[in-house]
Order: sequence, then C-alpha cells, then structure tokens
Amino acid sequence: MAGSRIGMQTIALSSRPAICGSAAYAGKKEGEGPLGAQFDFVAQDELYNQDTFELAEKQLYLDAIRKAIRKGGSRPEEVQFLLGGDLLNQIITASFSARDLGIPFIGLYGACSTMAESIALGSMLLDGGHAQQVICAASSHFCTAERQYRYPLEFGSQRPPTAQWTVTGAGATLLSMTPKAPVLAHVSHVCMGRVVDLGITDANNMGAAMAPAAADTLLALFSDTHTTPEDYDLIATGDLGQVGHDLLMQLMREQRMPLPDERYTDCGLLIYDREKQDVHAGGSGCGCSGVVLNAHFLPQLQSGQIRRMIFMATGALMSLTSSQQGESIPGVAHAVVLEGAGSKA
Amino acid sequence: MAGSRIGMQTIALSSRPAICGSAAYAGKKEGEGPLGAQFDFVAQDELYNQDTFELAEKQLYLDAIRKAIRKGGSRPEEVQFLLGGDLLNQIITASFSARDLGIPFIGLYGACSTMAESIALGSMLLDGGHAQQVICAASSHFCTAERQYRYPLEFGSQRPPTAQWTVTGAGATLLSMTPKAPVLAHVSHVCMGRVVDLGITDANNMGAAMAPAAADTLLALFSDTHTTPEDYDLIATGDLGQVGHDLLMQLMREQRMPLPDERYTDCGLLIYDREKQDVHAGGSGCGCSGVVLNAHFLPQLQSGQIRRMIFMATGALMSLTSSQQGESIPGVAHAVVLEGAGSKA
Repeated sequence: MAGSRIGMQTIALSSRPAICGSAAYAGKKEGEGPLGAQFDFVAQDELYNQDTFELAEKQLYLDAIRKAIRKGGSRPEEVQFLLGGDLLNQIITASFSARDLGIPFIGLYGACSTMAESIALGSMLLDGGHAQQVICAASSHFCTAERQYRYPLEFGSQRPPTAQWTVTGAGATLLSMTPKAPVLAHVSHVCMGRVVDLGITDANNMGAAMAPAAADTLLALFSDTHTTPEDYDLIATGDLGQVGHDLLMQLMREQRMPLPDERYTDCGLLIYDREKQDVHAGGSGCGCSGVVLNAHFLPQLQSGQIRRMIFMATGALMSLTSSQQGESIPGVAHAVVLEGAGSKA
Repeated sequence: MAGSRIGMQTIALSSRPAICGSAAYAGKKEGEGPLGAQFDFVAQDELYNQDTFELAEKQLYLDAIRKAIRKGGSRPEEVQFLLGGDLLNQIITASFSARDLGIPFIGLYGACSTMAESIALGSMLLDGGHAQQVICAASSHFCTAERQYRYPLEFGSQRPPTAQWTVTGAGATLLSMTPKAPVLAHVSHVCMGRVVDLGITDANNMGAAMAPAAADTLLALFSDTHTTPEDYDLIATGDLGQVGHDLLMQLMREQRMPLPDERYTDCGLLIYDREKQDVHAGGSGCGCSGVVLNAHFLPQLQSGQIRRMIFMATGALMSLTSSQQGESIPGVAHAVVLEGAGSKA
C-alpha cells in the first residue's frame, strides 16, 4: 500500500523511493569554499561562457540535470517529470531548461525551499505509481538574485551583518523506482510545511523570517512520526544562516525539543568559510541547499556515514512588490527524511 | 492499484478522485460578461476593499478557497495541501493566502496553466494515497499583471489586436477521496505537458506562443489513451484567445487530428463579450481558466450536460527579464480529463 499517512503533515512512503543520481554545479566562490572539492563542477566565472547571468544560471541548471541523469544510469527521455524551480521571476531558469530537455515539466515555486519541495513531491509521485523516474532541481545565482531582489550589482550596496550571500549553483537529484545505478539514499518520509510569518520585514534578515517556519515543520515531523532529534544522525536546514540557525535552536528549546549542537547544521553555514569569504551570516538561495545536499550529504548517506537524516529546505516567500508595500516575509519549510542506501525499512 | 501509467505523458487515475467543491470569484468586467451570473461572487471594483491591487487579488484568492472548501462540506483544517499559484513574481498571491489559511502549501508556477497543473498534481496525490483532500487554486488580476508584465496602468498603452485581456478572478477546486458534498466531477486522467517554444517573441501575442504546447499535450493525450477528439463532449483550452484558438485548430488539422468546431472551445473566448467589451483576442491569465472551469464547466459536468471533457490550461513561461533579453516565449499546457459525476469508470 502506497503512501500510508501518519499525521496531518507527514507522510510515510512505504515504497521508499531511491535516489540514484545527483549533481552539484557551483560557482567560483562556492568552489573556493570548504566543499569545493565535492562539487561535480565549478564554473570559472559568473557568466559561465554565456551572454547574461540569467543564461549562465540556466546553463548550470541544465548541466546539473543532465549530469545527475547520466550518473543515475539514465537518459532524459526515460525521465517522466522534471520538478523544478528557482528564485527568478516566473522561474525562467527552470522553464527555459525544461524547454531544452523536453521532459514534462512541473514548475514549482518555493523560494529556497525548492530542493526539498521538489524531492518531496517527486517522491510522492513515485510512491503513488505515477512515475518510474523523476528529476528534481533547484538553482540560484548571486548576480541574478541580487539584482532582482535587492540592488543593482553596480551600486555596490553595503550589506548588514544579518545578510546572507546568495549561492551560485544548481543541484539536481534523480529519483527512481527502478534504479540503474548504485542507490545513494532512500526517501522514507515527507513533511510539507505551512506558511508561517512572525512579522519580520527586513529582506536582509531572511534567516529570522524563515526560522519560525522551520520550527513549525520540524515539530510536525517529530510529532507525526513519534521521533525526537536523537533519532537522526543529522538534521540539516536549507539556508537559515547563522541568525536563523541560532533562532531555530532557541525556538526548539522553548518547545522542549532541543536540537543537539552536534547533530544540527545548516547548509548556509557549510558552504562558505565565513572567516575568509566575507559572506556575513552565511549562504542562501535555492542553490545553497541544492548543491550541499547533492554534493555533501548524499555521498555520506551512500557511504553509511549518515544513516538517517532530515533534510529541510526553508524559503522566504516575499517579492520585491510585497516588500515595497510593507508586507512582512512569510516563511515555509519542507522536509524529507533520507535514509542511507544500506538501511532497511 | 493506484496510478497505472498509460504512456509517456498520460496517467490514468484508477481511483478517479472526486471534485466536490468549487468557487469562482471574479472582477467587475468579468461579472459584466456572458458568464457573469454563474460566478459565486463579483467584486464591485478592482480594489475589492483593499489598499492595493495585490491585496485585492489575494483577497479574491482567499475568499474563493474558503468558499470552495465550504461548498465541499469541509473546513480548512481538514484539507492536507493547498496546491496553488498565480502570475505574480514569487507567487505572492498564493503564498500570502497560504499564510492566512494554515494549510500545508505546495507552491506552483505554471503561468496560466496553473489551474490544470494544480488539479493534475492534486489528483495524483489523492490517487497515490498521500492525501484525502486537497484544495487547488489559481488567480490573476488585470491591474497586478499588466503593471508587472507590460506597462504602468497610468501609461495607457495601446494594445494590438493579438493582445488578450488579463482576467481578474480566482478559481478554487476541492478534490476529495471522501466527499462530504455532492460530487461535481471525477478526474480520470492527467497529462503533464512539455515546454515547447517555436520562437514567438511578442508578449502581446501569447496565444500564438502557447498554441504549439497545447497541440503537443493534446496529441500526447490522444495517443496515450487511444482516443480522438470525438471521444469527448468538450475540449477546452485555458486562454489561447482567438489567435491561439485558430492556430491550435490549424496545428491539429496538420497532425490529422482535427478539433471539431462544435466540441472545441477556449476559456478566453467564453469569458467576455468580445463585441462589446473591447478585449481584443479574448481573456487570459490563470484566473481565466480558473473561473471558467469552476463556474461554467463543473456545473455542466455535475448536471450531465457534459459527460467527459478535456480541460487543458496553457501557460506562457516568459518573464520581463527574459523578454528584455530577447528570449522567445516558451509555452506549456497541462491537461486533465474530467468525467461527469454520474459517469462510471
């Protein structure tokens, strides 16, 4: 029986869809960070041989998808759905990539939660018998995002300490019910988040805006599955950065479900060397959790170093228009439970 | 057995999820059109008692969702997912509505294909056993869309004859495996579209940009299900308008699968009186197919006037940035097959 439900938000996937292909294409600055050697590819500059930053982001996206499918032992014409999104208006990165790939396209917008949103949805489609193989993808690019959400790059605006640095990178994950390559991990549970907004209006403090949503989803997952943080080798949030990371720790302590320091991390704190790379509160953008999952966590799940983890990407759902109209920033967090390739249901 | 696949793009849903709630909230101009009496509600002006057009669109969205859930005999806390999107950057209409509703949120971006994209995905989640009840929603607003995609409203730009008029309206559809209200229709098949782009660059001719994608999805659906246009009482596209409608007819003739004039229509041609309402090629926007489906087609499916139809919403996936950079407009079309409440599998 597919998809036996557990609670209001969490769904146990009895078929445990397999992840059998992954790729992470990153920008130059990300390549210079502590995870540099783990990426499939590091671009030498922001333009990646294209005419515009937007085309560069699309090329990273396309290349990551093609690589993940290839590493999964498959071909694009054998993949039933592309579930993908990005940060740009009308998700042009994903849409234009879908045009080039010819894979039926399910366009998503979850801001920086997209990597988890796409894997959660893709896993349910596989578990329900609606596809045999799907590719999930998310990206961001420092230059396309900064000029869309904040200021023209040429303006050189000063960034407050709470600001995060938008990651240039694309992550892609191939899910399959009939894997033709070694399995990296299984998706055992998904937990789709509610939109939570505690009134943060500062677009340079997205970690604080997203932390309450992260706590909301984590608490739902723990409650629905009757687990605690101790049941997981690792809990990784998407891109809360230092401010959001600390706030989530505090919120979870207040809810009497403290996250142990040694088992909780945030992709935005892993991707850069914050001492040397001047990124303030850490990394952000869909590409942040996208590349860290695919380059850093999945290999550890495959090797057995991580047996069971929560991957929860968080998104800040504001737009330039909503910010200009004085609206606060709604947050959302979607989570998937990943189990190592060797683990049994 | 859930979700037996048929072909590469079409999926037969063996459980035939039920539509048991629907609502259409429309703007003043739409209320003055031929379908005016069928809408659940018609706003008296563009602002709908709100401070901004964006807040007005959100309020229409929220009200349509709440009404559809209520008509379906349910309450928001009994609905597992909100699958929704809209045309605005970062889908703020859907995201901010999700914040107010507290329903776990799956944010979608499919431009004007959103109503079909959300119903297709929602149906698969029900069919797979991952939810008992989901709400699907899509909206657009003339004033928010025009100023975002084209020109400031105050500029009063002249519109070419190929241009369409963005519908102000929100449609919401409640899908359920355990309906508590009379069933309006069943979803028997879904067909997710590929992104197709034949090189149209004129953002005032979206019908032409979307017609090739519409043909691509229709041909896949017919081929996968071994059906022809004659097997359906009605085939309705989302918002191709007159230009796209005629082009789709031509493309299907060329593929030797002609659409019979009396069985093919387009939501963009139904919503306005084109003789009197000065909308050029017809209506457009996610809200166009959203309100026409919920106010016009679903009651006919319930009454038995339509026994079986294809509802296919089409989307133009460009952004202002992609257009300014000279990119052509990719189109996508997602289709669902709807069967009248009295029909048997």
